[in-house]
Amino acid sequence: MALSRCHFDAHPELVSLSPTPRSTVTRSRERARTDRADLHAVLDAGLVCHLGLVRDGAPVVLPTGYGRIDDTVYVHGSTGAGYLRIADDAPVCLTVTHLDGVVYARSAFHHSMNYRSAVVHGTARRVTDPGERWAALAAITEQLAPGSWDHTRQPDARELAATAVFALDLAEASVKVRTGPPVDDERDLPGDGCWAGVLPVRTTFGAPEPCPTVPATTHPPAHVAQRP
Amino acid sequence: MALSRCHFDAHPELVSLSPTPRSTVTRSRERARTDRADLHAVLDAGLVCHLGLVRDGAPVVLPTGYGRIDDTVYVHGSTGAGYLRIADDAPVCLTVTHLDGVVYARSAFHHSMNYRSAVVHGTARRVTDPGERWAALAAITEQLAPGSWDHTRQPDARELAATAVFALDLAEASVKVRTGPPVDDERDLPGDGCWAGVLPVRTTFGAPEPCPTVPATTHPPAHVAQRP
Repeated sequence: MALSRCHFDAHPELVSLSPTPRSTVTRSRERARTDRADLHAVLDAGLVCHLGLVRDGAPVVLPTGYGRIDDTVYVHGSTGAGYLRIADDAPVCLTVTHLDGVVYARSAFHHSMNYRSAVVHGTARRVTDPGERWAALAAITEQLAPGSWDHTRQPDARELAATAVFALDLAEASVKVRTGPPVDDERDLPGDGCWAGVLPVRTTFGAPEPCPTVPATTHPPAHVAQRP
Repeated sequence: MALSRCHFDAHPELVSLSPTPRSTVTRSRERARTDRADLHAVLDAGLVCHLGLVRDGAPVVLPTGYGRIDDTVYVHGSTGAGYLRIADDAPVCLTVTHLDGVVYARSAFHHSMNYRSAVVHGTARRVTDPGERWAALAAITEQLAPGSWDHTRQPDARELAATAVFALDLAEASVKVRTGPPVDDERDLPGDGCWAGVLPVRTTFGAPEPCPTVPATTHPPAHVAQRP
């Protein structure tokens, strides 16, 4: 995919965790991860996925939260959201990407990124079972804000009625990972003083910023203040 | 969209910078930004976009680098990449998302994210003009690694021949931004000791990690070591 060893080799397919052609890697196969635990790890480490749908023959890619339970990933939306009208039983693609580093090579061509990414293909299934809906909403909330489901007011009937939940099976998914230094051409080595290497990219949490309506005596709980 | 004020209201459409229905916001309109400078700012601040294509009627969403010149955004890929065979003159959607904070509300329902996002709809145009290709590759390199284009070996004829470049016009695009504290229901205030607020999310660069082939006397240049 776009985050490949060769910076210009931007969009090879991802790597297979399943036997279908669209989830079989066609570029940079050495970056394939075929262990299901790798898929779970990439998904579990994320906060935002990019969900692709097709509308009138054209793709639509929207960022959204998500949650995972076993081999199902869930997304949700307002029942008033336009996109939901096209999501029922529709083909979707859910992608989660973690950028881990900018890879500086001795040539522009070999610039790259270190990353972990997961791409899930499948059909969106609208969740109607109340128990599965509840578990999915808990998972989505906990993915975004671990600890919040049990520490805040949970959804009431009106809020549940306003919320649509979709499930996507992880059966057809792929994971791709790049790590390590740049891979330069022999001709560009040692590079005559040209530095090459990786600039790590890190995502971190800052200090909690209280809502102005929160009394000064109410401090953030541990699941917020000590979030790793 | 998925990163909306209401955590469960996950996927309203984005906001319009153009008059077409698909780039007109249908959810959380108050988050719309209609200034073209806002679009440029969101794009310019990113390292990775998520590019959506349609293959056999199903969406494919892949992460990739990109670059912008005026009102055109460019992506590139290996001419051997499978996805390129479906990108020529195809409808695409290019989305860039910055997650700025996790919004903790007093209810699970009102959990949300602070974010900036841009969604561009259009048709991928394969760039064949050598001058435009060169400028696009420079822009893509500089977006990922500012300073690298002039500090490393630039592409030779073989590398150029192996690289496909696509352009996407910014004519049909939307930007959406959420900032600030949670918006709780009146009934949940003051919250009886329940903390609410924002946990900022920051993306930062770590210390440069030299490639093992780089002599210890070669230090990272300022555009790497002092990258903001």
